[in-house]
Parts: sequence; structure tokens; C-alpha cells
Amino acid sequence: MAKDIITERSVDYSAWYNGIIKHAGLAENSPVKGCMIIKPYGFAIWEKMRDQLDSMFKETGHMNAYFPLFIPKSFLSKEAKHVEGFAKECAVVTHHRLMNDPNGNGVIVDPSAKLEEELIVRPTSETIIWDTYRNWIQSYRDLPLLINQWANVVRWEMKTRAFLRTAEFLWQEGHTAHSNKQEAIEETRMILDLYAQFAEEWMAMPVVKGIKTVNERFAGADDTYTIEALMQDGKALQSGTSHFLGQNFAKAFDVRFLNENNKEEFVWATSWGVSTRLMGGLIMTHSDDDGLVLPPKLAPIQVAIVPIPKPNEVINEAVDKIVKELKAKGISVKYDMDKKKRPGFKFNEYELKGVPVRLGVGKRDLANNQIELKRRDTMETINVPLEGLAQRIEDLMDEMQVNLLNKAKTYRSELTTSADDFDTFKSVIEEKGGFVSAHWDGTTETELKIKELTKATIRCIPLDAEDEEGKCILTGQPSNKRVLFAKAY
Amino acid sequence: MAKDIITERSVDYSAWYNGIIKHAGLAENSPVKGCMIIKPYGFAIWEKMRDQLDSMFKETGHMNAYFPLFIPKSFLSKEAKHVEGFAKECAVVTHHRLMNDPNGNGVIVDPSAKLEEELIVRPTSETIIWDTYRNWIQSYRDLPLLINQWANVVRWEMKTRAFLRTAEFLWQEGHTAHSNKQEAIEETRMILDLYAQFAEEWMAMPVVKGIKTVNERFAGADDTYTIEALMQDGKALQSGTSHFLGQNFAKAFDVRFLNENNKEEFVWATSWGVSTRLMGGLIMTHSDDDGLVLPPKLAPIQVAIVPIPKPNEVINEAVDKIVKELKAKGISVKYDMDKKKRPGFKFNEYELKGVPVRLGVGKRDLANNQIELKRRDTMETINVPLEGLAQRIEDLMDEMQVNLLNKAKTYRSELTTSADDFDTFKSVIEEKGGFVSAHWDGTTETELKIKELTKATIRCIPLDAEDEEGKCILTGQPSNKRVLFAKAY
Repeated sequence: MAKDIITERSVDYSAWYNGIIKHAGLAENSPVKGCMIIKPYGFAIWEKMRDQLDSMFKETGHMNAYFPLFIPKSFLSKEAKHVEGFAKECAVVTHHRLMNDPNGNGVIVDPSAKLEEELIVRPTSETIIWDTYRNWIQSYRDLPLLINQWANVVRWEMKTRAFLRTAEFLWQEGHTAHSNKQEAIEETRMILDLYAQFAEEWMAMPVVKGIKTVNERFAGADDTYTIEALMQDGKALQSGTSHFLGQNFAKAFDVRFLNENNKEEFVWATSWGVSTRLMGGLIMTHSDDDGLVLPPKLAPIQVAIVPIPKPNEVINEAVDKIVKELKAKGISVKYDMDKKKRPGFKFNEYELKGVPVRLGVGKRDLANNQIELKRRDTMETINVPLEGLAQRIEDLMDEMQVNLLNKAKTYRSELTTSADDFDTFKSVIEEKGGFVSAHWDGTTETELKIKELTKATIRCIPLDAEDEEGKCILTGQPSNKRVLFAKAY
Repeated sequence: MAKDIITERSVDYSAWYNGIIKHAGLAENSPVKGCMIIKPYGFAIWEKMRDQLDSMFKETGHMNAYFPLFIPKSFLSKEAKHVEGFAKECAVVTHHRLMNDPNGNGVIVDPSAKLEEELIVRPTSETIIWDTYRNWIQSYRDLPLLINQWANVVRWEMKTRAFLRTAEFLWQEGHTAHSNKQEAIEETRMILDLYAQFAEEWMAMPVVKGIKTVNERFAGADDTYTIEALMQDGKALQSGTSHFLGQNFAKAFDVRFLNENNKEEFVWATSWGVSTRLMGGLIMTHSDDDGLVLPPKLAPIQVAIVPIPKPNEVINEAVDKIVKELKAKGISVKYDMDKKKRPGFKFNEYELKGVPVRLGVGKRDLANNQIELKRRDTMETINVPLEGLAQRIEDLMDEMQVNLLNKAKTYRSELTTSADDFDTFKSVIEEKGGFVSAHWDGTTETELKIKELTKATIRCIPLDAEDEEGKCILTGQPSNKRVLFAKAY
């Protein structure tokens, strides 16, 4: 059983997470501190996520472009809050040449090749993009400008975890420019909805849509919207953010346009991004002690077929037919003809890798016009007739996609608690975990005090929070709606 | 006419190239020296190229993965020839933190945040990938390992030109591992064929397949294969390379496997890549003094429809029907309803952007059940019946794809000259340009001398070069086949 390979969640959640990543072949540490290697199977999942998001961006009128990896150091000084947020832990390029070590020990940095101005490996690209937009935008006719970029970014993190927090990560960053405030806010909100739709419909990962507190806001934004998911250890994962940037970057980089009345105005901006961090969310939302569990829509292999005990002419012929029928339905399928591995070994491997449906095909079953089918989400095994198999599998995958989302929703609602006083709040955070819905007085001071006392942060002010008179759990000051607290990644 | 916007090729080829890039909206310089910004329309073309190549790699059994942006400096010292070739002009990360300038002038590099070992922004990833493969490969069962990566790389270039030579560029790099020499050589050759097929069938850019001389070989390779294309100024463009790396990287990074007889051997390797440089090749193969010319298979917009003089109900209705029919055939189409721009302005714009087919739709033509069609490759304008229009356009695009390839082939054969003595050779290189097929004695010394005297380099020893006794054009030493010389980008 795969159970023997991966540490159980209940024993050591962190070891379980690392075990899934290792044994499903998703990623591994690299020799460069904090940077990971995304292995082929992990990358194939990321490609499916990326392609779906990309098509959703394009359907909503965005185009991709590519901006430089490097940002001149001076750019990071231009937007005051942005400096505070980003100009800290980053990779700094100071030289542009190596030379042979005169002592014969390989290569050393050529001291004469010092750059006049240091370059920063982009932690995010607002600065260089807004510097560029200055030349692209003259009139209201140039707006809106709806651009996205798929790129690698670097933030020098001290404490890293595969997918969740790495020095280098892959992401998309949207950067849009608008002629008025309302349109920019609508774009910010539209993207938030798009992210939430992707998370729920494709990742089967339920999310809370909300707005960040001033303290948790993106550096340089007027408002940051977020989707927050709940992991199986009761911790929240910020899974995507969409920022209304007001005119901050337009002012910092002097980006003005002539409006329809021929008057000059500063441009309004948004930016938004999701990253390979989503991979961490996907793993932690569905996987179990037997390995990775994938929603069918994101599985690189949707159906694995294992001959029992090994391939032969009769089995191959039957499988060929099944493979053809599945492919005709656009279902990705792998027939594992490896003769050196036993069926049990293969079963384990596909369970570890989260392949949604596994078929076992043996001669005796075939004689009875049936085969063995195992679904990964519930681990149920049933015998099913060959007749109508492809249709059954297509329907089953739809069912599994819904089942995984519902299961995650149920889990989340079980782990969402209302608290009306600080003692209850603290004990829920410490013992039960999950989201805690509570009143807060709206000040950063209180927010930070609660974090200090409990390690819980305000994940967001949910967009659907109802008006409700109450008292702040810490200070007793009046509050008119509940916010969502949790410990977070 | 677009002719008035872009400098003509005959006047200033380099200005013409830059004019196409600017006026078709493909790319522009960035504030970071040597790095370019790929604009949305340019990136949309690159995406089409990337997606097609990616599917060809996958069809031949390769999977994508992702390796770190940074390479520890020490890695570049491990493979001696590789150091010579790559450890020179590159971006060196020495620090990991910025801090506020105590004098209040923005941010400065924090001197206390110096890295123990400098990191190099990857110029290519052989070293870090082979360091990783050491852990992935134990037995012949782990082979072959067929991996590709789409990534950005950086080589600190002094003299840069959009797409052709930039400090940062986008590319794919394949890195495969094999259990025996023959299989690795076959992979190297298979990829060369794949590149040539892509260049000819998709880019309509004819290429010569060949092998590089020792002097032009990739640093660390035993053999470098190349596809070489000829640009309209008679200069050659190395468009893709596929390297047989022997056991060099396996030895440098100690990557061994147990063969079927349980004996330890070093692994055999290949690497291969094409980059955004292909965009430069695409532009320079087909474009003319009116702007960009795109083969239909790579055009982001294949058909542009312009209402004459502006949209109205009758025209819109007719266009809707055309758009639906074109889309049903998978043809990408844009109906330009902008009321602020005159038809002539739009015609110019689509010509500049290389849109293969432009339709002009006016009321009077519609009354006669016809519309105006202009094809970009020949600039011919004809009136065509509405009846069967989509089918006609689909056929026309196939014809244009072939026409562009044939035109480029004709051009190339006109600019390929045989030379049997050095005076002829030199005058062809200097006056006519293009490829010169000539005998060479096989020594690096002669190769470098010819380069010094004429600026021409050996582009490759063509794979289809026939055995032919001859004498080296420079030294008169015996030679048994002709090689291909040219000035090159």
C-alpha cells in the first residue's frame, strides 16, 4: 500500500506534504538554495492549469507580452510603498563577466566588469511595465490596455517549501491600464471572479473571495482582493490576488493620457497574479495518505490501464479498443505495458500519482465482458461491463470532479467557526484550526496584536460578509461585519 | 502606402528590419541594456511557434520540466570546454538584499547580504540539469530521459539587435540522456529533422541541415548540428542547433548507470535549442518594403475584414456570416469596426502587420454578391464571389504558405554560388553575398584565416554534401567535399 511509503497526515503533516511531492514525482530541491526543480509530472499538471488560465485571460480580452527579467535598481525607488514591500530580499546582479581564476581554480567574478547600476531580478514587474506604458499610452484611444505575462520571478526567501514559498517561482502577472477608476475596479473584480471560477471548476478547490486589510495589502495598491482556500491542516492558503492600484504607478512613472475632452489625466491601473503556489493548494486540498489526488480536469493521465498479470494478445486487443474509445472522447489514457513491474506495483504508482481512474484488465474478466475499475477519489473498486465503458468513465470523471469540490466544501464548512469572544477565538485557532469568523475593530494595531497572541491573521474581509453589529473580539470596540481569521501559509 | 513608413531594404537593410519590428508592433528596446520587450503582437506570433514546436516535442516523447534560473558559479568550472564557451559574459548575482540608502536616495545594495557563492543567471542549463540527472538515473531502465524546458536565458551581449541577439532571450532547451552512443546520435539527428520540418512547413523558411566545424561547435559538444537559413541581405542565420554531447557532461557531473549486464557506464547526452531568434529569421525571410509578411500558419490574425467606408447594418450582417464560416474552418479573423479610422489607414495597418488576407466589404460590392480580397504575399487585389468565400480563403492560405516557401527557396538558390578559387570566393562574398559552396582543407587555421580575410564563416558541412575531390580555396590542400560559407548574423 502507498500508505507505507508516505508519512500519514495525522503523524506529520509537513512530512506528508513533502512525501507526496517526492513520491508523485512533482518537484525536488535544487542545489540553488530556495529554488526548486519542477519535475516532468509536476510540470504537466502546471501546464494544464496554465493553459486553462491562459485561455480564460484571452477570452476576456487580454494578450500576452514579455518584459525583461531585470529591473534597474533605481526603478524600485520610484513608488514609495512598493519599495518598502519589494526592494528588500531580492537577487541583485552586480557584475557581467566571469574570468579564469589566475590561481587555476575554475572561474571567478571579473572585478572590472562591475555594472554602473545594479539590476534586480524581478520580484514582480509593475515598475518596468509602467515605465514602458508611459510610451504606449497617449490618448484614451490607447485604453484599456489589457496585458498578461507568464514569467519567472525571484524573492529571496529564507524559509522555503516546495511550491508554497520558493525563491524562484513561475507565475502570471496581469497589468492593465484604464481611463477611469470604475473600469479599473471592475477589471480587478472580474479577475478575482475568474480566479475563483478557475479554483472551483478546475482545481475543485473552494475559495473565499474577499478584500485584504490595509496591513495585508500589496505594496503600492489601493485595494487588494484575494481568494483564500483552506488546507487539510486547517491553515489558509492565499491562492491568488488582484490589485486595484489606483493611480499610484501612473504617478510614479508619469503615465498620463488625453481624455475624450482633451484633458490630461493619470492612468488607472490593476495588477493580478497566481503562481506555482496553486500547485501546493491543489496537493493539500485533495491528497490523502495514499498519495496525490487530482481532479480529473487537471490530471495529465486521466485513465491508467494495467494488464493483469502482464500484456498478452487477448488483453492488448481489448485494451486497444478501450484506448481508442477513450481518446475519441478527449480522455488521456496510458496503457502500461511494462513487463518488468508487477500489477500491484503499478497500482501503487498510479495511486501515488493521483491518476483518477485505473482499469485492471485480466483474461478471465474479459471472458465475462467486464473489467476492474478503481476510482482514486473514493478508492472504490468495482467490476464494470466493457459495453459502454468509455461513456461510463466520462460520466465518472464529471462525478469525481464534483465530488472532490463538494468534499472540500464540506471540510471547509466544518472548519469554519464563528467566535464572539477572544478566549473562544484563541482556543479555536489553537485547537481546531480553520477559518474563524469574528468581529474586528478595523485597526491595524488590533490586527497585529491578535497575530502576536495567536499567530492568526486576517485572511480577508469576505465580499459576501453580511452587515452585523458586533464587538471586536480583542478590544470590544464596535464592528459592523465579521472578518475571516486563520493561521496561514 | 506603408512604403513611406518603413525605410526600404535597398536603402538601409538594418533600418528596414528595425522599421518592421517597430511598425508591426513586434518588440522594442527596454530600459535594461540589451534586453527587449516583446509586444503583444510579436508575442502572439512567438506563441504560435512555441505551441507548434511544443506539440512536435511531445509527439516525439519529450516532456517539459523546469530547472532553476540560477547556476552556482562552481558548476561552470566543471566541464572545461563549457567554461571557455559560457563562463564569460553573463549576469552575476552577488547579493540578496537591498536597503534604504542612509542618505535618503532610494535603495542601495546591502553590503552585509553578500552571497557565499555567486550565482550565474543561466546562459544555458546543461550544468544544472546534469547535476540533477545524477540523482534521476541509476539504471538503463531510467533511460532514455527525454526532457525539454521553455525558459529565459541571459548572455551578456555587447552589440544587440531585436530578436537576433539580445542579452535575455526566450528559448527551449532539450536535454536528453541515453544508454548508448547510437541512440544519442539518433536523437540529435531526429531533433535536427524536426527543426528543419518546423522551419519549412510552419515558417516557410528553407534551411540547410549540416554539421558545424570544430571551431563553430557548441562548448562541450562532440558534434553540433545546425539548420542555416538565408536572409534577404544575403547573410546566413543559424536558426537552431542540436548537439551530440557524448559523455562529456556525464563525466563532468559523474552521471553513471548500470547497463543490462549490470556494468556501470557513463550516460550519453544531447542538448538542442531554438529561440526567439527564429522571430528574426521569420521577419527577414518574407517581409517586404510594405511591412511584415507572415506565413498563414503563424499569423495571429489570418483574415482582417474592413468595412468600406464604415460599418453599417447591411455590411455587418454580411460580415457576421463570413466570420462564422471562417471560424468554423479554424481561421482566425478580425472584423475591424473602428469608426474613427479610415479604410485606407486600416489597409496600411494590416499590411504592416503581415495579415495574410484582407477583405474590403462595401455596400455596392455586396449588392453584386462579391467582395474585395487582397493577399499580402503578392499584394494582388481581386474581387471574389461571396459564394464559397471561406473555402476559397482556406485554399488561398494553403497556396500562400507554399508560395512563400517556394519564393524563399528560389531566392536562396539564386544566392547560392559555387566558388573554386579564392578570388572568386572573395568577390562573391563581398559583392553578391549569400551562401558560397567551396572546398576547404578541414583545418581550423584555414577557417579562421578565411574569416579574417572575408568575414565569411563556415556555416556548416551540409548533410547532403556529395563526395567530390577538390582543392581548398585558400591553401590548395586536398578536400573531399564542399562546405557552405557565408557572412552570418
